[in-house]
Amino acid sequence: MTETLPRGTMRASVMTGVETLRIEDRPVPTPGPREVLVEVAAVGVCGSDVHYYRHGRIGDFVVDEPMILGHELSGRIAAVGEGVDPARVGQRVAVEPQHPCRRCRQCKAGRYNLCPEMKFYATPPVDGAFCRYVTIDDDMAHPVPDSMSDEAAALLEPLSVAITTMRKAHVVPGSSILIAGAGPIGVICAQAARAFGASRIVVTDLVASRREKALQFGATEVLDPTEVDVTGIEPVDAFVDATGVPVAVSSGIKAVGPAGHVVLVGMGADEYPLPVSHIANLEITVTGVFRYTDTWPAAIHLVASGAVDLDGMVTGRYDLDHVADALESDTDPASLKSIVRPE
Amino acid sequence: MTETLPRGTMRASVMTGVETLRIEDRPVPTPGPREVLVEVAAVGVCGSDVHYYRHGRIGDFVVDEPMILGHELSGRIAAVGEGVDPARVGQRVAVEPQHPCRRCRQCKAGRYNLCPEMKFYATPPVDGAFCRYVTIDDDMAHPVPDSMSDEAAALLEPLSVAITTMRKAHVVPGSSILIAGAGPIGVICAQAARAFGASRIVVTDLVASRREKALQFGATEVLDPTEVDVTGIEPVDAFVDATGVPVAVSSGIKAVGPAGHVVLVGMGADEYPLPVSHIANLEITVTGVFRYTDTWPAAIHLVASGAVDLDGMVTGRYDLDHVADALESDTDPASLKSIVRPE
Amino acid sequence: MTETLPRGTMRASVMTGVETLRIEDRPVPTPGPREVLVEVAAVGVCGSDVHYYRHGRIGDFVVDEPMILGHELSGRIAAVGEGVDPARVGQRVAVEPQHPCRRCRQCKAGRYNLCPEMKFYATPPVDGAFCRYVTIDDDMAHPVPDSMSDEAAALLEPLSVAITTMRKAHVVPGSSILIAGAGPIGVICAQAARAFGASRIVVTDLVASRREKALQFGATEVLDPTEVDVTGIEPVDAFVDATGVPVAVSSGIKAVGPAGHVVLVGMGADEYPLPVSHIANLEITVTGVFRYTDTWPAAIHLVASGAVDLDGMVTGRYDLDHVADALESDTDPASLKSIVRPE
Amino acid sequence: MTETLPRGTMRASVMTGVETLRIEDRPVPTPGPREVLVEVAAVGVCGSDVHYYRHGRIGDFVVDEPMILGHELSGRIAAVGEGVDPARVGQRVAVEPQHPCRRCRQCKAGRYNLCPEMKFYATPPVDGAFCRYVTIDDDMAHPVPDSMSDEAAALLEPLSVAITTMRKAHVVPGSSILIAGAGPIGVICAQAARAFGASRIVVTDLVASRREKALQFGATEVLDPTEVDVTGIEPVDAFVDATGVPVAVSSGIKAVGPAGHVVLVGMGADEYPLPVSHIANLEITVTGVFRYTDTWPAAIHLVASGAVDLDGMVTGRYDLDHVADALESDTDPASLKSIVRPE
Repeated sequence: MTETLPRGTMRASVMTGVETLRIEDRPVPTPGPREVLVEVAAVGVCGSDVHYYRHGRIGDFVVDEPMILGHELSGRIAAVGEGVDPARVGQRVAVEPQHPCRRCRQCKAGRYNLCPEMKFYATPPVDGAFCRYVTIDDDMAHPVPDSMSDEAAALLEPLSVAITTMRKAHVVPGSSILIAGAGPIGVICAQAARAFGASRIVVTDLVASRREKALQFGATEVLDPTEVDVTGIEPVDAFVDATGVPVAVSSGIKAVGPAGHVVLVGMGADEYPLPVSHIANLEITVTGVFRYTDTWPAAIHLVASGAVDLDGMVTGRYDLDHVADALESDTDPASLKSIVRPE
Repeated sequence: MTETLPRGTMRASVMTGVETLRIEDRPVPTPGPREVLVEVAAVGVCGSDVHYYRHGRIGDFVVDEPMILGHELSGRIAAVGEGVDPARVGQRVAVEPQHPCRRCRQCKAGRYNLCPEMKFYATPPVDGAFCRYVTIDDDMAHPVPDSMSDEAAALLEPLSVAITTMRKAHVVPGSSILIAGAGPIGVICAQAARAFGASRIVVTDLVASRREKALQFGATEVLDPTEVDVTGIEPVDAFVDATGVPVAVSSGIKAVGPAGHVVLVGMGADEYPLPVSHIANLEITVTGVFRYTDTWPAAIHLVASGAVDLDGMVTGRYDLDHVADALESDTDPASLKSIVRPE
Repeated sequence: MTETLPRGTMRASVMTGVETLRIEDRPVPTPGPREVLVEVAAVGVCGSDVHYYRHGRIGDFVVDEPMILGHELSGRIAAVGEGVDPARVGQRVAVEPQHPCRRCRQCKAGRYNLCPEMKFYATPPVDGAFCRYVTIDDDMAHPVPDSMSDEAAALLEPLSVAITTMRKAHVVPGSSILIAGAGPIGVICAQAARAFGASRIVVTDLVASRREKALQFGATEVLDPTEVDVTGIEPVDAFVDATGVPVAVSSGIKAVGPAGHVVLVGMGADEYPLPVSHIANLEITVTGVFRYTDTWPAAIHLVASGAVDLDGMVTGRYDLDHVADALESDTDPASLKSIVRPE
Repeated sequence: MTETLPRGTMRASVMTGVETLRIEDRPVPTPGPREVLVEVAAVGVCGSDVHYYRHGRIGDFVVDEPMILGHELSGRIAAVGEGVDPARVGQRVAVEPQHPCRRCRQCKAGRYNLCPEMKFYATPPVDGAFCRYVTIDDDMAHPVPDSMSDEAAALLEPLSVAITTMRKAHVVPGSSILIAGAGPIGVICAQAARAFGASRIVVTDLVASRREKALQFGATEVLDPTEVDVTGIEPVDAFVDATGVPVAVSSGIKAVGPAGHVVLVGMGADEYPLPVSHIANLEITVTGVFRYTDTWPAAIHLVASGAVDLDGMVTGRYDLDHVADALESDTDPASLKSIVRPE
């Protein structure tokens, strides 16, 4: 470990109950072997953070002890643990917030995102990043170019979700895709679809201003699902749901043509009706996205090359004392992506 | 066309209404260019034949004109159309009952089973095989070895469904698979799973005698779903539903482990609840089977090599005058597969 | 057939021997069932045209009868055969110059490019497009948008080769790729690589002016292989050979990292040494490209969206009387792509 | 660590130079965290052991320090390191002799066999298993059923090579395959091909007795390549080379049909001529096999189910004092697979 290791305590915004946050002094964590200590620069607010904040749980994951939220982050390496090149101190990095076991069947098959022993930031009981310092395995701290802002580097995390979605949706140059929902994930998926070469990118949302955002960030066409029945459009090769709303999922699936692909990204109820006959008769495949593997290098390229614009998606910035405001900003239809800057 | 072309009329069992069949004299069909005329030897009774017979429709396909049922068949080439080698007359063949357009996007992508202009035997308004003669494209009449019985040759069709299912379920040596339902499709899927190398083949059925059949034909383990909750078993790599029953589908999906595969083969309601969170969180893929492509050569090998036993599945034989009995045999739990022999 | 069918004869540039062309009057062809007659607007000159012209053969394909060269073409539908919508007359189209059998194992598997009964333009004994009119199957005449030039529409054919190459090279956003040769195929592959999202595109060529072209059309880096040993560069995910030169192929393969992909596009000797140990020890896959399937829709999108620039690659235009000049233009290093305009 | 840990020294057969072995007393190794200590029961002799013994090197891997050979092994867990369930002591296991880094790009992509930091048994400078005890990561010690012999358990390693080969050769029920060479790897590949469902398995070898072995273990047809030109046989879907002999590789590739697969398993020269035109024109893919990932569970099933017979392949057994005899047994054409039993 190098001499630059920060000592003492740091400020952290801790969720202590439903819709309750408290600033606490926490010890600065110590990087273990093959870990790095990252001084956090920017943290994106994700729908899952908001869900934990409002409901105290997501499915079986329950926040029953105080926990720090936030898992979309970038920063600067402040210290390194044993076995890590000390020359990395000072490096600007985007953090892939996963700590898989690396030994189970899923890890060894290249699906470390599905590791049953995963420790993931801001998933109970693992703390997240609304604080000054975090530790992460050295290979999960991805260097970013100087030209990339801290905020864009933080948003490589949701872009990683979108890249995984495009891979699972089999989007290639010339594909057509329907995306339900023009919130942050829908919009970033539209951008990713364009970057992957999709020729037709239809986005639906109930809110006109969100449809406008979608058009600005890659959609070739937007629809208000209360006015247009998507099951009647020219069939698409892929459908991505970013709403979690059963009726949107069901009608979106019916818009998919033979041998098409459906990827469910939005969180919703545990079980709800799907159009099984349509799926079977057209041999459509339906799957979901749970985190990501090997996406940061591609994400960095897409942003650095200008194919994806993350900075333009940021609509609000908050410090550690205003994390609650950041978490509640999603009720404002003009808000797209909020950033917390802990410094 | 050769001189051996049969002329005149033939007997056919025609469905004229719900649960109504009539023997009619129909003209012997004439093979067109690149077609062959097949003298039918054996026809398997499929669940879809039974469904049309009982309900007059399957989804949007409605029997509103008299139609001949039956699409699992073998026979002997009796005559050939223009452009077909006359030496094929006399050849014993298994018929792949598909007539795709060969020009659409699906056909050209190798998915001719999904051709929107498909003409498929015993699917309104296309006649099937409960008669003496049928025509089919020459490349869809697959020669079978002398060692294979007419009945086994007919049942290459449901075996083709099972082979397609195994391909979509990604079954390879060492896979584990759960199959819901020990009717003809469930049992033939168990056989196919064993032939594809699955090491653990769990079959569920409500009826004890059917579970016995499954054990006899490849299952390594059988369960009564009213007594054992399949969601509690050691997770499987693949789940195949051969029931169409929502609760079986839902619990079967929950028995699948990370990155597993689900294939829906059984016909049921158009829309019903699926465990979406489980699908998404474990990145399971769900799809269905709609016919098949390029399966007869593999099916012929599996039967000829002894890996799959089709003859042993036949539990009843009927002539053209007793097609109704054949169609109604499925109510007998001791019946597994009925064959109509038109000669 | 419609009344607009042109009658009588047309001018054609016919290859009658090695380096020998003659203008002949040929009958305007008549479109058969499901065919269209295309009035040719623009034809790109391909390396294979040049090879036939210079050597009279490519491998086992020998020009032993007079033959019309040219297979990269666009035009306007002048008449339609039986079974084709007459409303297509007047439509501007890019021609996919393939006539597969649609019935063999390869065709039915979605690999119609590998059909052993293929009739392909300008491949003995099938005539090509250096003439006023050609016929083609209706589904191989792809409508192009008004915004696309005739020349760009013709060059969708080499772009199709490049798209197939990218697919086989598994190029996705973030990939790194090495391309040997900055002739027309190398340059169009560089463009395709960029459109498929490659982040690092290294192109090698002996000629400085060609390296300049590569940089202009997508390369992120160019190398003179006489000065830099590509086996020493940071390993790439994919290598594409567009030279056919053994030493370029061998060293290019050695530049590929673990589990990488090699696609051989350039034509060369039938057999030459490859670095087998490197291929085996790194589990690299090596394959080639032989024509294409299902590429025109993607190609049209890439050009229409501006991701690929075909017009900018055209460096010379010739009429039917100057086809020899077009074929010989490849000796000029300033020449990239020559176009014949038969009108 | 448990109390059962053996202490003191053990006997080992150490290669001290080309064709030179010496029995040494070595310290019993101590299992580290997440490692197990295995008392070796049986070790198969591999062609690479023989190559090191005869030539002192394989490519860039040079035996320049004394090294223990042997990497195909089974045994019994004698002690466990920190973090391993002590209940595993006494368990019979087959050893997967790989120690990957688990953190690099290849490892995280599920290709740990290609890890550049791999430590592999009997690959300089890592010792192998011709000794009494070895250590290995706990997840690489695969439990085997009581019904499986120690020798079969050891030979799961070459079976893993064959399983990987079948996967890369895309062998599925109904495939046809040509295998060059009926030595241990060729024979075990023939067995694996049969277990994967191949319908036509052609094996070539110069030696009649070896061809007999191939027929006994799965080949449907054998050929003497000095009498039959394999380029003239009915084209196959896949070709596996288990000779490393250029002429066998070249002619084998030419026997492959459109879109077929070639897998090079045999070790030979670093670089030699391949039929590039045939590869490119038929879009054949050529690759190699370098170790394996996730094969032991499948291998155990194939042996336990009787689909593959490993015991029947053993033709010689040797103790630690006769390792040289074991290594030299390959010159006897009647020898197929030799086993060293260190106890």
